[in-house]
Amino acid sequence: MAVTLKCITEDNFLEAFRLKLRKDQEEFVSHPIRSLAQAYVYRNQCQPFGIYQDEEMVGYVMVIYDYDVPEYDIWHMMIDETRQGRGYGKEALKRVLEYIATKPFGESNRVVLTCNQQNIPGLRLYRSLGFQETGNVDEDEIELVKML
Amino acid sequence: MAVTLKCITEDNFLEAFRLKLRKDQEEFVSHPIRSLAQAYVYRNQCQPFGIYQDEEMVGYVMVIYDYDVPEYDIWHMMIDETRQGRGYGKEALKRVLEYIATKPFGESNRVVLTCNQQNIPGLRLYRSLGFQETGNVDEDEIELVKML
Repeated sequence: MAVTLKCITEDNFLEAFRLKLRKDQEEFVSHPIRSLAQAYVYRNQCQPFGIYQDEEMVGYVMVIYDYDVPEYDIWHMMIDETRQGRGYGKEALKRVLEYIATKPFGESNRVVLTCNQQNIPGLRLYRSLGFQETGNVDEDEIELVKML
Repeated sequence: MAVTLKCITEDNFLEAFRLKLRKDQEEFVSHPIRSLAQAYVYRNQCQPFGIYQDEEMVGYVMVIYDYDVPEYDIWHMMIDETRQGRGYGKEALKRVLEYIATKPFGESNRVVLTCNQQNIPGLRLYRSLGFQETGNVDEDEIELVKML
């Protein structure tokens, strides 16, 4: 399985626009369109990616650097509703961690994400790659951290 | 009436996210969230603005420079559904033309926009400020041009 990340550009953003969240995940994760709108305002500290299986965009994820902590945050990771259950999320997350390990925006070994506590598959995925709860909870969103 | 443009930034993008298109205008104009997602990929050649009446964001518009022609294009201008019929659109368009006259991205006196041919108030507005049909039509979208 060749899961890779490609930067969102003029050439592939329409594919990201067309990705579909699974109905029951819509309350947990922002759609890539909304995420890219945020990427505009944080454009000097973030990198949005299409998640590819070979040549097909099957999902989306954004990495953003928080200069204040500093830390790397993973935002809005999603796999298209028709492409779930094939391990793409886990492979994509490995690629994201490899990308962060190159320290594209600055120093920090701290990688943080949040996950809705009802998003059981999400939590299972993040824990399987070594993310642990920080204890911070914002409404239903649990914060998880991994040190590289 | 003090209608001004302010760049979309970290400080005001959530207000832009909350702007509402009038139901019958949804088919004619992209929502600011979708527009800002496009602004991400065209970030080096565009400037999205909030349209303000005093301190309140009442609408949205994006200016994008087409290096190939070259020309300035006006995209996705909208006024919130609750703030229409007060002349904000016309004042905002004047501010947009003043901004373009400063040639923020490069030379060109050519300003182009498109408007759905069923969007009668839109067409009236653009014509009132000197925009004229180029004759190019893409499906229902009429192209209009004004030379500064």
